[in-house]
Amino acid sequence: MLMPPQSWLDNLGAFRVSLPALEHFPTVVWSKLVNRHSRRQTRQLMAYGGAMGHLPFREAIAEYLGTVRGVRCDPSQILVTTGSQQGLQLSAQVLLDANERVWIEEPGYHGARHALLMAGARLVPVPVDQEGLDVEEGIRRDSKAHAVYITPSHQYPLGMTMSATRRMLLLNWAARSGAWIIEDDYDSEYRFGGRPIASLQSLDAGARVIYAGTFNKVMFPSLRLGYVVVPKDLARAFSAARDATDVFSSTLYQAVMTDFIREGHFARHIRRMRMLYMQRRTAMVEEIGKQAGDTLEVIGAEAGMHLVALLAPGVSDVAVARTAAELGISAMPLSTCYLKSPARGGLILGYGGTDARQIHEGIGKLRLSIGQSTRIEKAGRNTASVSLPPR
Amino acid sequence: MLMPPQSWLDNLGAFRVSLPALEHFPTVVWSKLVNRHSRRQTRQLMAYGGAMGHLPFREAIAEYLGTVRGVRCDPSQILVTTGSQQGLQLSAQVLLDANERVWIEEPGYHGARHALLMAGARLVPVPVDQEGLDVEEGIRRDSKAHAVYITPSHQYPLGMTMSATRRMLLLNWAARSGAWIIEDDYDSEYRFGGRPIASLQSLDAGARVIYAGTFNKVMFPSLRLGYVVVPKDLARAFSAARDATDVFSSTLYQAVMTDFIREGHFARHIRRMRMLYMQRRTAMVEEIGKQAGDTLEVIGAEAGMHLVALLAPGVSDVAVARTAAELGISAMPLSTCYLKSPARGGLILGYGGTDARQIHEGIGKLRLSIGQSTRIEKAGRNTASVSLPPR
Repeated sequence: MLMPPQSWLDNLGAFRVSLPALEHFPTVVWSKLVNRHSRRQTRQLMAYGGAMGHLPFREAIAEYLGTVRGVRCDPSQILVTTGSQQGLQLSAQVLLDANERVWIEEPGYHGARHALLMAGARLVPVPVDQEGLDVEEGIRRDSKAHAVYITPSHQYPLGMTMSATRRMLLLNWAARSGAWIIEDDYDSEYRFGGRPIASLQSLDAGARVIYAGTFNKVMFPSLRLGYVVVPKDLARAFSAARDATDVFSSTLYQAVMTDFIREGHFARHIRRMRMLYMQRRTAMVEEIGKQAGDTLEVIGAEAGMHLVALLAPGVSDVAVARTAAELGISAMPLSTCYLKSPARGGLILGYGGTDARQIHEGIGKLRLSIGQSTRIEKAGRNTASVSLPPR
Repeated sequence: MLMPPQSWLDNLGAFRVSLPALEHFPTVVWSKLVNRHSRRQTRQLMAYGGAMGHLPFREAIAEYLGTVRGVRCDPSQILVTTGSQQGLQLSAQVLLDANERVWIEEPGYHGARHALLMAGARLVPVPVDQEGLDVEEGIRRDSKAHAVYITPSHQYPLGMTMSATRRMLLLNWAARSGAWIIEDDYDSEYRFGGRPIASLQSLDAGARVIYAGTFNKVMFPSLRLGYVVVPKDLARAFSAARDATDVFSSTLYQAVMTDFIREGHFARHIRRMRMLYMQRRTAMVEEIGKQAGDTLEVIGAEAGMHLVALLAPGVSDVAVARTAAELGISAMPLSTCYLKSPARGGLILGYGGTDARQIHEGIGKLRLSIGQSTRIEKAGRNTASVSLPPR
C-alpha cells in the first residue's frame, strides 16, 4: 500500500518545490487562446480523441524537443500525457512485469518510486555522485536489471548533471543487456551556467530510451500536459496502456498549447522565466549565506527550480521540515528521497514560485526552525517518516 | 499485452457508441463559464490541486448523486477522476493484488476487462440474463472471488436492469465473503420507461461498494471528468493511488463544471438530452423494423444511449462490422464483449450522436453490410478478433 501525501507539507508558502512563478504567467494571452478554442468548439475538439494525443500538438512537441533537447523522434512516437508522473506510470506498466528489478537513483524522486512499486517492480537503489548515477556500481549490484529510472539533465533532488562518460557507460550497458532506460527530463528548460546538455535519448542508437517530460512546471501545474517519447516498436503498447488507464487527455488544452507554442509565446515565456529564476536562485544562495551560512550548505544550484541545503550531520531534516511547516514554510526533507538512511540530512527548497521578499523572510524562518528543532531533538521528539507532494 | 484499439472502428459516422449529441450541447453557456474562470485564473486554480479533486466540485457531485442516484456519501468519499475508465483502473489498482479473482459480466465491458487485467487480476466470467448478473451462478463458479465488476442500472452491453432480488443476493454475498463490488453507473441519466432505479451503492449497508460514474457521456467526451465514491476507510488508499498515477485532474474544467451544475445548466441539459435520445431511440427501433426487421432483433432499448441488434445465428458480427466500417458506419460487434464465444452475434449501436437522417441512411447501409458479409462469409473470409474504442 502506498503512503498518502502528508497534509502538513501541502501547498505551503515559500520554497514549494516545482511551483513556478504563477504571478508572471501570461494569463491574458493564454485566456485569449482558451476562449478562441472554447467558443468555436468543433466536433473534433469535443469528441473522443486518440490515446496518443492530438496530432497537431504532437507535431509541435516533436519539433520543440528536436530543437531544444536533441530528441530524435517523429510525432508517431509521442504520447501526450497529463505530466511526467503519468509518463512514468505508463512506462512502468508497459515495460515491467511483477518482481522485475529496476535501478533507481539513490537519492531519487519519490513519485518515480511509487509508480514503479505500483507496477510491482523491485527497486535496486544505485548511488549518485558528482557525475550522476554510478553506472559501474549499478552493474555490480544488479547487471541483469530490467530497466533504470534516471534524471540525467538535472538529478532529482541533488541537482548534478550526468557526465558524458557515465552516459556512454549506461547506454552501452542497456544495449548489451536489453535493459530499458526511463529518462525523466522534468525541468531541463532552466540551466544557469555551462553549456546546454542534450538529452540521453539523443545519444541512444539502440532505441532503449523512453523519454518523459512535462509542461506543468514551465506553464502551471493544473495544466496537466506532458509527453513520453517512445521507441517506434513500443508505440502500440503505450497507446493500449493509455487507453486502458484513462483513454486520452482532454483536448482543449492540447489545442491551446499547440497555438501557444506555434505563435512564439512559449519560447518567450521560457526566456523570461529563465531570467527570473536565475535572479531568484542568486537571491536564495545569498540569503542562505547571510542568514544561515553556519548551518546550511548549498548544493545543486546550477539549474532547475530548486536547490538542496544540507544540514549539519546529526540534525534531523524531518524535524526541521515539521517545525518550518508550522511557520508556513515548505522545506522538503532530503532524507525522504533515500531508500536507505543518508549520511546527512538536508532541505529541498524550491525558488520558482518564491519571490525576493518571501526568500528573505523564509530563510529567516528556516534559520529559526533549525535552531528550534535541534533543541527539541535533543529532548527526544519523534520524527516519523513522511510522504510528499509532487516534486 | 493489451490489444491496441483497431483503427477501422475509430470515430466513424453513425452509431458510434457513447458519442452524445454534440450539436445540441450548450456551447455558448459553457464557453462563457470557461472564459469566466480562464480570465481570472487564481493561484489556486493554477497550482497543484489535491489528488481527491477540487472541493467545491466534490460537494456538488455528492449533492447531485444523493438526489438523483440515492448515493449515500459525503464529499470526503469522492475522488474526481478523468472518467469511468480511470475509476475502474484506480479501483483495480487499490483493491486487487496480482492473481486475485474478479467476477465480470459475460458479456461485459472491454474497458473494465483491460483495467482489471492491467492490475494482474484473473477474470471469472459470470453470465447475465434478463435480471442482470446471475449471482447464484457466480457463487457456484467462484464463491471466494475478491471483487465483482458490475453495471446494475444498465447492463453493458445488453441493456437490462438488475432485479431487486439479485441486488440483495449480491450485497449479501459481498458482506459475507468480504468481496468488493465495483459498480459502474456509466449512463444512468437516461431511462425511457419504468420507474427510476437507485444505485446499488444506496442499498449497501456494509461499505462494500465502490461507485464509479462519468460526466463525459452527458457532457462531451473530451471533458475528461468523472468520479468514484469510495467507502470512508478506502479514501486514503485511493488518494495515494491517484497521486502515484497522474497526481490530480486539471482544475479549470472542475471549477467550470461546478458552476454548470450549481447554476442549473446541468439539470436542464440532461432533461433536453433525455427527450432527444428518447426520440432517437424510437427512430432507431422503427427504422430497424422497417428496413431490417428480418435480419436484426432489437434488445435493451429501454435506457441509455445504445441498443443491441442481434443477428441471425451463424452470421459473424465482426464480418458485418467490418463491411459496415467500409461504408462509414460504426457497428460494434457484440462478440467482442464476450470472453467465450456467444451463441449469437449482434451489433452494439449508439444513437446518442446520430440524428434522424443518419439513422435512416445508416440502417440502410447496415442492411447492405449484413447481406454482403453473409455472402462473403460463405466464401470463407477471415474474421480476426478486434479490440474497441471506448464504450
